Amino acid sequence: MSGNTLGTLFTVTTFGESHGPAIGCVIDGCPPGMTLSETDIQPELDRRKPGTSRHVTQRQEADTVEILSGIYEGKTTGTPIALLIRNEDQRSKDYGNIVDTFRPGHADFTYWNKYGIRDPRGGGRSSARLTAPVVGAGAIAKKWLQEQYGTRFHGGMTQLGEIEIPFSSWDFTAQNPFFAPTEDAQLIAKLEAYMDDLRKDGDSIGARIDVVASNVPVGLGEPIYDKLDAEIAYAMMGINAVKGVEIGAGFACVAQRGSEHGDELTESGFATNNAGGVLGGISTGQDIRVSMAIKPTSSIRTPKRSIDKQGNPVMVETFGRHDPCVGIRATPIAEAMLALVLMDHALRHRAQCADVT
Amino acid sequence: MSGNTLGTLFTVTTFGESHGPAIGCVIDGCPPGMTLSETDIQPELDRRKPGTSRHVTQRQEADTVEILSGIYEGKTTGTPIALLIRNEDQRSKDYGNIVDTFRPGHADFTYWNKYGIRDPRGGGRSSARLTAPVVGAGAIAKKWLQEQYGTRFHGGMTQLGEIEIPFSSWDFTAQNPFFAPTEDAQLIAKLEAYMDDLRKDGDSIGARIDVVASNVPVGLGEPIYDKLDAEIAYAMMGINAVKGVEIGAGFACVAQRGSEHGDELTESGFATNNAGGVLGGISTGQDIRVSMAIKPTSSIRTPKRSIDKQGNPVMVETFGRHDPCVGIRATPIAEAMLALVLMDHALRHRAQCADVT
Amino acid sequence: MSGNTLGTLFTVTTFGESHGPAIGCVIDGCPPGMTLSETDIQPELDRRKPGTSRHVTQRQEADTVEILSGIYEGKTTGTPIALLIRNEDQRSKDYGNIVDTFRPGHADFTYWNKYGIRDPRGGGRSSARLTAPVVGAGAIAKKWLQEQYGTRFHGGMTQLGEIEIPFSSWDFTAQNPFFAPTEDAQLIAKLEAYMDDLRKDGDSIGARIDVVASNVPVGLGEPIYDKLDAEIAYAMMGINAVKGVEIGAGFACVAQRGSEHGDELTESGFATNNAGGVLGGISTGQDIRVSMAIKPTSSIRTPKRSIDKQGNPVMVETFGRHDPCVGIRATPIAEAMLALVLMDHALRHRAQCADVT
Amino acid sequence: MSGNTLGTLFTVTTFGESHGPAIGCVIDGCPPGMTLSETDIQPELDRRKPGTSRHVTQRQEADTVEILSGIYEGKTTGTPIALLIRNEDQRSKDYGNIVDTFRPGHADFTYWNKYGIRDPRGGGRSSARLTAPVVGAGAIAKKWLQEQYGTRFHGGMTQLGEIEIPFSSWDFTAQNPFFAPTEDAQLIAKLEAYMDDLRKDGDSIGARIDVVASNVPVGLGEPIYDKLDAEIAYAMMGINAVKGVEIGAGFACVAQRGSEHGDELTESGFATNNAGGVLGGISTGQDIRVSMAIKPTSSIRTPKRSIDKQGNPVMVETFGRHDPCVGIRATPIAEAMLALVLMDHALRHRAQCADVT
Repeated sequence: MSGNTLGTLFTVTTFGESHGPAIGCVIDGCPPGMTLSETDIQPELDRRKPGTSRHVTQRQEADTVEILSGIYEGKTTGTPIALLIRNEDQRSKDYGNIVDTFRPGHADFTYWNKYGIRDPRGGGRSSARLTAPVVGAGAIAKKWLQEQYGTRFHGGMTQLGEIEIPFSSWDFTAQNPFFAPTEDAQLIAKLEAYMDDLRKDGDSIGARIDVVASNVPVGLGEPIYDKLDAEIAYAMMGINAVKGVEIGAGFACVAQRGSEHGDELTESGFATNNAGGVLGGISTGQDIRVSMAIKPTSSIRTPKRSIDKQGNPVMVETFGRHDPCVGIRATPIAEAMLALVLMDHALRHRAQCADVT
Repeated sequence: MSGNTLGTLFTVTTFGESHGPAIGCVIDGCPPGMTLSETDIQPELDRRKPGTSRHVTQRQEADTVEILSGIYEGKTTGTPIALLIRNEDQRSKDYGNIVDTFRPGHADFTYWNKYGIRDPRGGGRSSARLTAPVVGAGAIAKKWLQEQYGTRFHGGMTQLGEIEIPFSSWDFTAQNPFFAPTEDAQLIAKLEAYMDDLRKDGDSIGARIDVVASNVPVGLGEPIYDKLDAEIAYAMMGINAVKGVEIGAGFACVAQRGSEHGDELTESGFATNNAGGVLGGISTGQDIRVSMAIKPTSSIRTPKRSIDKQGNPVMVETFGRHDPCVGIRATPIAEAMLALVLMDHALRHRAQCADVT
Repeated sequence: MSGNTLGTLFTVTTFGESHGPAIGCVIDGCPPGMTLSETDIQPELDRRKPGTSRHVTQRQEADTVEILSGIYEGKTTGTPIALLIRNEDQRSKDYGNIVDTFRPGHADFTYWNKYGIRDPRGGGRSSARLTAPVVGAGAIAKKWLQEQYGTRFHGGMTQLGEIEIPFSSWDFTAQNPFFAPTEDAQLIAKLEAYMDDLRKDGDSIGARIDVVASNVPVGLGEPIYDKLDAEIAYAMMGINAVKGVEIGAGFACVAQRGSEHGDELTESGFATNNAGGVLGGISTGQDIRVSMAIKPTSSIRTPKRSIDKQGNPVMVETFGRHDPCVGIRATPIAEAMLALVLMDHALRHRAQCADVT
Repeated sequence: MSGNTLGTLFTVTTFGESHGPAIGCVIDGCPPGMTLSETDIQPELDRRKPGTSRHVTQRQEADTVEILSGIYEGKTTGTPIALLIRNEDQRSKDYGNIVDTFRPGHADFTYWNKYGIRDPRGGGRSSARLTAPVVGAGAIAKKWLQEQYGTRFHGGMTQLGEIEIPFSSWDFTAQNPFFAPTEDAQLIAKLEAYMDDLRKDGDSIGARIDVVASNVPVGLGEPIYDKLDAEIAYAMMGINAVKGVEIGAGFACVAQRGSEHGDELTESGFATNNAGGVLGGISTGQDIRVSMAIKPTSSIRTPKRSIDKQGNPVMVETFGRHDPCVGIRATPIAEAMLALVLMDHALRHRAQCADVT
């Protein structure tokens, strides 16, 4: 209940700090009999890992995953699956200047106040590095959902700062460093130039990320407090730096009339998808559509006013290696989170409603 | 785990259907020794109850609450507090025409598919009527937080359809039927006319609601999966009809730079509140600021295409008594939800960090 | 997490005090589509209710149950089922003399120290009266298990004080006031005389209760911490006055050799049942066999030394209406607890292992 | 919810199999600021580890623990503490003959039926080896409870087969290979001879283990379903091979009268301890006294009838390295379990009752 476990029936309990010896997680509740090895997990970790372009942190971490348990002769056994990722590139000295001060917009201040002690090396446990085990666990959920229902996940950046990225196709997200769903080379060049300028300025920027799950079975979600959309909102808002979450039409629904918003049903399915695939907290079988706002990184070289532990005023500039836009690497994380929520609810659904046909 | 319990240490388990004999909840984990009676709870229920203006449903429910347990000589004993509200005004015949069809945008379709059976009378369990017990429980959380920390809750409507409602003061929300935080009589008149037109059209409309908690202690929230903002997003997205949630700057942060977004700290506190009172998932001590999008009611008189249980195409018009804008009565619900989340995390915090000074 | 909810997927949250307005529970997780009404529940409550013979408390409570939710047209809908039982016969004045003192062997002392406040009327929440909602919930679990797997429950008293009751058949437990599984009329007469003497002495006595579940599917139970036998031990030890629990051979296994204890498997099944139907925390498909020790009632007329709230020495005699042997009415409670544990694990099993054949 | 997590607020999630690459656990909820290193944990692991005398399994495992997270500059930070123990001495070939058959009295049969797949190497996850991470976690709980309340834990064997071991003092448990609380050298010699004979016979034997916690604060335990004694029963029955649990007087209470059983209170405390330190599910402040029955090891050389996976009759003899009496190494495990339950409830108590004085 200290908040390091995600999920109810398919649970992920993570551990580790950015600059400790290792990070990892224990995944509990995976059904037995599924083929699984590190080769199913590593590709997802590779999508998230640092150092893949000049627009993300230059920390060098291979993020090589080791499965410690839960597999026998290449198959899951129904027992916990532990994933271990050793930390390799810790330059803790980079963080010397923030040991006693609080970065504006960062968890430094709140961890210190909550616990009375704080591991300042790389942000300790508050580091976005802790999303790696989640991505690893998400790879398992994705595989299971794909095998059971043919569920597929897609995601990408749809806005960087003030630059909107019109959606073209998910096919293109792997072809640029931003997970942008566009083949517009000029737009990509514009995004690259934007990031280069930002880096020169020692500043950071926000982003909008969209994720979609297709081929989701109807009936997932538990009313009235573990609604599927409520759990998705929880999962997404729990990703570092997320400040807003929308399902389907999202905030646009404020100005919609009921005659416009409600998705009509026809013999061949729903005519529109304002609901984003969830009605009354339960999946409709349509695509689950989620959008989220990611704030700019708080660790920037631009000096800002802050205080130290004693409450004295100081100016803070953060050196070390940081992502100037944490939104860039957020796509695989958001996909993983969505997969984890869906798998958890798939198991919950069959517990109570196994007999419903 | 079937989703009818909210919270971890301060839990609310609700029961009931819109047109069943009663609705209510069991509240567990309330600390002992707090003075409590129905008079602490009824006023909050009265803020939410139907029939208070021509702009909401005309169903007549006094929503009179009875405390069944957990109180001895006027004080909480640390044992479960059960609240009971009898349903009084059930005109189930109003719903005869939707027994076999699915209202576009409504949970009818998903409940049917999930459970294979559905109580269609007034929406059954999916009815917003089920927020009444939550509001009752929230009154207890509000009282406790007020006594412990002086925490106060405010909320109101900041947009109705396309009409924005500029914030003036929370003092005015009780003086108009919309919980609008404005004393602008012309604007209120405009909102009333807007609603009257809508009702004549047999249509419905969305709204934006903001809620704020002040005097929140620093340190509440559990990283890294039960972050305070993640739990708030879960709670708010779990309210009927909510499609989007923002904390602090929300989606505006997409276009913000780090140099702008990160709230500077000074000797006299934070200089701004883009964070909305949460950093790294933990409360900063600033106001918690939440905004949410509420979709238009799906039960409207305007005919829409749908299908029946056999999959045949039908046209659906919904009669009976419905709120043309569920956002109008959402304010006390959202305040209650926020109070429940904060109280839960206050108890969680003192479990683990009781010794931190 | 304040301990008023039993179960993980099939949960029972109880509320109420012995002399408050009502007791009851919310049952969550019941699969949809099962026929259910009060007539399925009342007979089990009648087995437990007070006043059925001169050997139990003479408090007059009809224990009439009302279902408040979760049923539509006679069938469960998958939503919470709330049960309400109004208290009728509260003679709270009987308890006046124990308001400020602690009965030896009673929860008076610990509730006072834990909460700093205590409802002394009839023991408040610590009263065995609070097992009534559990028996009601157990009736639902029994019905579901019977329909799904043909599971049957039996139980009875196998020892009263020093008098052992040799097992003859479960068929006889309904034919005497002790739930004794014997047709030996002389033995029953001996038990009656024993109880009459005890009552004259103003004293109480312990008992041993056995319960058995037959036709339990193989595979229920979650290693390695929610083992089926661990959960049964938790459930049984949680019944008021239980001080010991055994599964299968129980304490007799201390003096057994492995060559004797391990139940051999043959083509036609297990040859013996030392395991009590559980191996490695998972059901074997054999009868689940549980035995428990129930301490003598602490509320007795015999004077004993105690202290008052101020710590001053006092002599305590308890008047009012009490069971001289709480073990007598324990059988339906223990059966209910066993049914609740099995149903919970049946749902848990199908969540994770639905595909195992 | 798949049963690999122990506790509610202070949780231990274990992973690993007997012959996999590693075993370990994630401990969540430890309060921040406590000095902690491997040297606090290793001594407890050494008490449990195999190969310490000729009466236990000869498998050679150093059980060296590595802390992977949750510590900064020698102190706990409030974040998860992961413990890793690499498996070193896996002779999986020893188990070749039980891959397709089920040992009588062993979890082989039930794991196979539950999951449809089973790691047979050394019992896989059902191995008592998985108690090592629990002992590691228990060391942390012991340290915290000692620092907070001066709580101390003792335990030992009080019966081996039919040989009773009269209690002399806990001081002697470290001076013999059985954790026997006696200085009677002749009795120890008798136990050694008994075990030597047993080993020659290729058989195994049961044992009784007692554990005691002293200096336990009053008020721990949550009525009415997470009673302290219910949780202890759950924890102890969850230890491999336990078939019975008693608190205080245990089964002896069946033949006790209320006038004898109820512990009188005097100005200087309780006069007796039939309750075993728990009344109404809440600690009284007296010693918590627990006793448990441990069945004989099911892996024995003596041939027994069984079946193979296809249901054909076979004779099973188990070779490999096994404890002829698993009760011998059970003492540190039972102490650890008791410590984990108490720490969990200490945190739960301060969540709800922090203000009670």
